Amino acid sequence: MREPNLTPRSAVFVVALVAAAALTGAWGSMAKAAEMTFYGNQFFRLVSDEGKVILINPWIKGNKDAPFDIDFFKTGDVDLILATSGHGDDQGNAVEIAAKTGATIFTVSELGGWMQNQIEGFGGSKKQVYRGGIGGRYQIGGVTVQLIQSAHGSGIAPRDKSFPARYGGGPASGALITFEDGLKVLMAGSTGLSMELQLFGMRYQPHVALIPIAGRFMMHPDDAAYAAKLLMTDNPNLKTVVPQHFRVNGRPGWMGTPEQFAAEIKNLGLDLEVLSPEIGKAYTLRK
Amino acid sequence: MREPNLTPRSAVFVVALVAAAALTGAWGSMAKAAEMTFYGNQFFRLVSDEGKVILINPWIKGNKDAPFDIDFFKTGDVDLILATSGHGDDQGNAVEIAAKTGATIFTVSELGGWMQNQIEGFGGSKKQVYRGGIGGRYQIGGVTVQLIQSAHGSGIAPRDKSFPARYGGGPASGALITFEDGLKVLMAGSTGLSMELQLFGMRYQPHVALIPIAGRFMMHPDDAAYAAKLLMTDNPNLKTVVPQHFRVNGRPGWMGTPEQFAAEIKNLGLDLEVLSPEIGKAYTLRK
Amino acid sequence: MREPNLTPRSAVFVVALVAAAALTGAWGSMAKAAEMTFYGNQFFRLVSDEGKVILINPWIKGNKDAPFDIDFFKTGDVDLILATSGHGDDQGNAVEIAAKTGATIFTVSELGGWMQNQIEGFGGSKKQVYRGGIGGRYQIGGVTVQLIQSAHGSGIAPRDKSFPARYGGGPASGALITFEDGLKVLMAGSTGLSMELQLFGMRYQPHVALIPIAGRFMMHPDDAAYAAKLLMTDNPNLKTVVPQHFRVNGRPGWMGTPEQFAAEIKNLGLDLEVLSPEIGKAYTLRK
Repeated sequence: MREPNLTPRSAVFVVALVAAAALTGAWGSMAKAAEMTFYGNQFFRLVSDEGKVILINPWIKGNKDAPFDIDFFKTGDVDLILATSGHGDDQGNAVEIAAKTGATIFTVSELGGWMQNQIEGFGGSKKQVYRGGIGGRYQIGGVTVQLIQSAHGSGIAPRDKSFPARYGGGPASGALITFEDGLKVLMAGSTGLSMELQLFGMRYQPHVALIPIAGRFMMHPDDAAYAAKLLMTDNPNLKTVVPQHFRVNGRPGWMGTPEQFAAEIKNLGLDLEVLSPEIGKAYTLRK
Repeated sequence: MREPNLTPRSAVFVVALVAAAALTGAWGSMAKAAEMTFYGNQFFRLVSDEGKVILINPWIKGNKDAPFDIDFFKTGDVDLILATSGHGDDQGNAVEIAAKTGATIFTVSELGGWMQNQIEGFGGSKKQVYRGGIGGRYQIGGVTVQLIQSAHGSGIAPRDKSFPARYGGGPASGALITFEDGLKVLMAGSTGLSMELQLFGMRYQPHVALIPIAGRFMMHPDDAAYAAKLLMTDNPNLKTVVPQHFRVNGRPGWMGTPEQFAAEIKNLGLDLEVLSPEIGKAYTLRK
Repeated sequence: MREPNLTPRSAVFVVALVAAAALTGAWGSMAKAAEMTFYGNQFFRLVSDEGKVILINPWIKGNKDAPFDIDFFKTGDVDLILATSGHGDDQGNAVEIAAKTGATIFTVSELGGWMQNQIEGFGGSKKQVYRGGIGGRYQIGGVTVQLIQSAHGSGIAPRDKSFPARYGGGPASGALITFEDGLKVLMAGSTGLSMELQLFGMRYQPHVALIPIAGRFMMHPDDAAYAAKLLMTDNPNLKTVVPQHFRVNGRPGWMGTPEQFAAEIKNLGLDLEVLSPEIGKAYTLRK
């Protein structure tokens, strides 16, 4: 219900703030249809039909596209947080934000175990971390979230710098989010191209798919377009694909762009709308 | 050859004991066809045509469905132990039981390495752990066990509580067990739904499949039924599906049930027998 | 440009050295077409059309098929090193060789992070490790390398022997290597049989595939032949399959052989050339 009292960190964010000001609903508003807002890399805010606020991969520290700091968050701002891997830009600041807001985190057992080890240090409770696994579901109000496979690593950078390797975060994940009205949004995580995407199309028939395009650590834009094709297998529902894992500010040179993705979708002749999200702008998602 | 001298731990186990008393063969008897007994969660005992005793995920400490303690086991009781992940309820007490019985453990290299680190502390030998990987086979008498993929985590809870994450257990696994007479039993482990299940049907054509139904950390009953459908791909052999990863005593509220699984198999119209195993009862498995 | 000044470690290597002496080009020569040389297990040297030298899994210490020591390598000898897992015989001596030659290592983020921790101890630089993930590509001259999935573990044996488990190396990988003239060589890593192999056929249409046959830790020869079949899906290009992960000297008894693989390819009736590489002999690879 709170207006997004955005705290700009530098003039760089003016454009993003203008976009954020165009939010069709307030931060935690009662949406009539599901809303999606993108804050760079893989940080998404989804607001369900009945107002449940879900954050995906809320990376803020180091994310030049995030138009607010962690201090922005207050108790009750967020209901659920998903973290698709233990990588610093994937789990991002999930633990801190959960501690500040009281939100539940839903992730795989291994990453969740590490988060439980960390969350009390930020003033939160271990009970806020609901540990699951690939295939498992979590229900929040009328929304169901299911963890799905993602061909990606999930190492966790150790806080103890003398430890010479990454901690194991278990399998990386994506998520299938089914909203109150039956709208199914598939967040593919940071995956490489995989036959599992064909299964997700056949079995879950998502209406909207958030597909990674960064390359280097995951699919490049051409494979991402092929992923969209696989997601169309026996799936008449898929109409909208959203490129994710890209940046507007602070974009590394190796990183794919939404324009490249849109061109590859066109190359494959796929009848899909490519929604390239602006930073901080709320989009209504429909079946 | 030894009668199952079951040690009840509380009155709760009376029903299980009655069932256990109905064992058609003794603990290590010479079976004429393969036998399967279920002890809750994913703990199965298989006895081969020629009497080889195989335990899968022998979780005892904390498993209220297990009608005996670790003390029950004596040298020679078990030939082979499989552990499908490093999770406490998957590997269970595999290491202790191997040390007590002299059995071989067959599992992936990473989990096996950790087990080798532990087994001497229980009086066993590192040589008892036969380390392999996904796709690898182990032969015991006329029985072949092959490790197969499972979409699941395999973190190991550290005994050193100051370590903030799980130890890595390598990839989770399932197993394809081919008995002396050619009967093929597929243990799917704790997997989420995956295209690999279609491959297992096409390539290995199992007759019996043990499919996880717990949800939360793995497939829920509806996805488990879809897994059965995938296993029928180019596979005329599959006749029997056995729900696994459920509990009778001490069942958590979130956990799926064999009844839900049977209903979902019916919903999909699959021509399969659903064998919902009673605790401690031996079932004969046939082609 | 340097002649392979091979240093035999024992008389055992005479045959290998004779073969090595038959190299059609020098160690770093300007090849006119891509060249492949096998040094046992999974250690391959590829030389691109324009002379880029790529090593895959350069395991030397303990590899009785390697006809030279690490001392053999000098600055500039190698351009790129791939390491498909953290296992000792997969990553082998990648870090030491990179330090000695100045080569870049391209591997997944988790394994790469550990390598960055190690490389300075051998006199190399962290910048030599280009960390990526499944699906990611690295360009070197006119050659593109893409990391692909492999159903395998990637645990790293700890140098600190008091640590009771393997360090996590992230997901295991294979690689798709596209040479200057468009020749595509797929290195399948140490994978178990997987539906991803079908995707690799459909999507990437490799001309040559390097397929593991060792068994125990990965596919046995019969599954390896089936993998070749999967790689032929919608792929008119595949003409040559190369068995890998076998040894000539110091072969363990459980390990599959190229002869078994060739027989299984024949059993399946696949119209493919099986190129069973001799140790140290350079083969020209063509589309």
